[in-house]
Amino acid sequence: MKDHHSKANRARVLADLNALRAIGAYKTGVHRPTFSEPHIHSLQWLLQKLPEAELAGEIDGIGNVLGTSAKAGPKLLAGSHLESQNFAGWLDGPLGVIYALEAARVINPDPSAKGAVEVASWCDEEGHFGQFLGSRSYVSDVTEQEIDAARDRTNARPMREALQAAGFAGRPRRTAARGRHLGYLEAHIEQGRTLEGANLAVGVVTSIVGIWQYRITFTGEQNHAGTTRMKDRKDAGLAAARLCVAIDGGFPSACGPRTVWTTGRITLDPGAPSIIPGRAEMLFQVRDDSPAIVERLEACLRELAAETGTASGCGVEVERIRTGKPAMMDEKFQRTIEEAASTFADGKSVRMPSGAGHDAQVLATIMPAGMLFVPSIDGISHHWNENTTDADIVRGADVFVETCRLLLAS
Amino acid sequence: MKDHHSKANRARVLADLNALRAIGAYKTGVHRPTFSEPHIHSLQWLLQKLPEAELAGEIDGIGNVLGTSAKAGPKLLAGSHLESQNFAGWLDGPLGVIYALEAARVINPDPSAKGAVEVASWCDEEGHFGQFLGSRSYVSDVTEQEIDAARDRTNARPMREALQAAGFAGRPRRTAARGRHLGYLEAHIEQGRTLEGANLAVGVVTSIVGIWQYRITFTGEQNHAGTTRMKDRKDAGLAAARLCVAIDGGFPSACGPRTVWTTGRITLDPGAPSIIPGRAEMLFQVRDDSPAIVERLEACLRELAAETGTASGCGVEVERIRTGKPAMMDEKFQRTIEEAASTFADGKSVRMPSGAGHDAQVLATIMPAGMLFVPSIDGISHHWNENTTDADIVRGADVFVETCRLLLAS
Repeated sequence: MKDHHSKANRARVLADLNALRAIGAYKTGVHRPTFSEPHIHSLQWLLQKLPEAELAGEIDGIGNVLGTSAKAGPKLLAGSHLESQNFAGWLDGPLGVIYALEAARVINPDPSAKGAVEVASWCDEEGHFGQFLGSRSYVSDVTEQEIDAARDRTNARPMREALQAAGFAGRPRRTAARGRHLGYLEAHIEQGRTLEGANLAVGVVTSIVGIWQYRITFTGEQNHAGTTRMKDRKDAGLAAARLCVAIDGGFPSACGPRTVWTTGRITLDPGAPSIIPGRAEMLFQVRDDSPAIVERLEACLRELAAETGTASGCGVEVERIRTGKPAMMDEKFQRTIEEAASTFADGKSVRMPSGAGHDAQVLATIMPAGMLFVPSIDGISHHWNENTTDADIVRGADVFVETCRLLLAS
Repeated sequence: MKDHHSKANRARVLADLNALRAIGAYKTGVHRPTFSEPHIHSLQWLLQKLPEAELAGEIDGIGNVLGTSAKAGPKLLAGSHLESQNFAGWLDGPLGVIYALEAARVINPDPSAKGAVEVASWCDEEGHFGQFLGSRSYVSDVTEQEIDAARDRTNARPMREALQAAGFAGRPRRTAARGRHLGYLEAHIEQGRTLEGANLAVGVVTSIVGIWQYRITFTGEQNHAGTTRMKDRKDAGLAAARLCVAIDGGFPSACGPRTVWTTGRITLDPGAPSIIPGRAEMLFQVRDDSPAIVERLEACLRELAAETGTASGCGVEVERIRTGKPAMMDEKFQRTIEEAASTFADGKSVRMPSGAGHDAQVLATIMPAGMLFVPSIDGISHHWNENTTDADIVRGADVFVETCRLLLAS
């Protein structure tokens, strides 16, 4: 059912991933935040590779790398991102970019393969400056005002300044030509343990969960930590701690089977050892692919916060600062990935939702989209220890290239 | 038993306190952190006032203001501090300095009053750069290396740089001439509600509690907040929250009647909304004047931390970073303050420990020391809302001046 031409060049895939790993290397991972010198270097590296796939490349005005084919026939868009979280893993992003590049290298120059794969590296998927700025720009969902206001969350550097320094300022931002692509395909490491735990090779993504985010603020009474009796205190920090514990106790009975929630940051104000915190702020997040479940959990959260505030003598405000919308992956893309996996991965695939956000959820707003996962060792993610075996990487590449071929041939 | 010469000039005391309040004014309080422009201004203000008390003044190499008398007879050292916590109250520090200045102005020029009051403003009692650096320097307990290493806790500015900018670098640091003073007297606002609640005018400090401080670090597993199932998590932030709640539940049955404890800071690492914290650090503090009680509480803390760590799948380290030593106030000083209060405050005084640290605890290591408190409205402290009524301020000044007179006369 397949011909050998559709197979990936395994050595080339591994060599390219390792070449990217060397750009901004940190321990066994990389430190390649958006618009850092290594990140810009990696974009230029990709730009120089695109001609190998008979693609005309450019870096646009928001830092997206786009490779365009002049070949006749259907076009499939494929890609991921090249920047990393701070001090994080080598495959989160680059895996999908190199798979896309490899599929383009295999399919585009082959006159017997129908159509072409076009390659994209979306800027700032990791959210140093905003949320999916690169892919959202491509689907015409980013205003100039949003870019004006964007700042690096690590060092507050304005995005405009970073674009200027990178040499991208003043370039046009490219947007999708509607109807040009039959869809978008992205590969990624799983960032979880589902595949590894079940000895599977490929995850066929059914949906990308929505992310709901909250800022919870307790207001108590800032006072002296030595002279204020325990009974007289209104300790906002203790209130925040109580809410974390209350959520941990209350959410399990109200959540869905795959719901996750996280308090990623707690800030006590003023944060001095001898002062009772008068104010405490928590950044809290819930992810699920069912808005109904999250609605129930939000009600639960508000109730627990109110109870905790009352019990701690503190005022409390629960503010939703991000409302997630789950993205459904295209059914035909899912079937095609399964078909490719049956050929190249002994059928060791499973359908699963993605708990992490990906550019595919943005592209899915304007075209059919699909995603496939390869296993991650111990599920470690957003850490320089993140890794995947070479065997899983090259098997995933074969499945990816074959999926592209099948989609273009159909 | 007293003559009218020993009474404070009430209008002068209030005018001086309000003059200081205008230097670095913030809402109804002040923002006058150590070596800020307003703080340096306040030190110079005091320097210029010292001749009114027949004192030769200087600012030494650590920023202490010291006024020295050439008058014959016994000398009493008195003072407090002029810097504030960030955005904090107007009386915390200045009250004691102006009382000392007033006592010196009343007693020193009066040939019928025996001896002299010498005035000190100790630098950095509020601990922007360290712990009691000014008074500890005066008792020869600060090395040059400690100053080399000291940095502003708010902005990490090196203390050496701040001393240079203030013009104090290169000056000698003055130390106590042993035997020169019969003792040290300090006044302060209570920073609590004991006096106000019992309609009292003066607190006679019996001891200054010790402060024990701990850095508690939980180490879990940093991971992706979307892809890591709840059951697979080792959330260091949740562990820290659990410990706060466990302490709140466990300490009351093991503490003393006046023990207080506070978690003033919680830091989650990396502190991003989409990353499960791999590390959490708490700054935790216990205050009591009984080392035996604190020893019991420390054992309790270590036990709760270990239990919480185990229950959360996290490693935990409890590190004691400050070991408090309670300081006892001199019995004769206590009796003298009571005697002055019986004359000038209708005997409305009470003996009480100080839950806050003060320079008097440092001076007490080399000479007899005493402290008196005046009431604070609602016990508010380390906040710009801190206040004391004018009536309580001037009554306290009378008691203070009289205490100085009695101590010098005895």
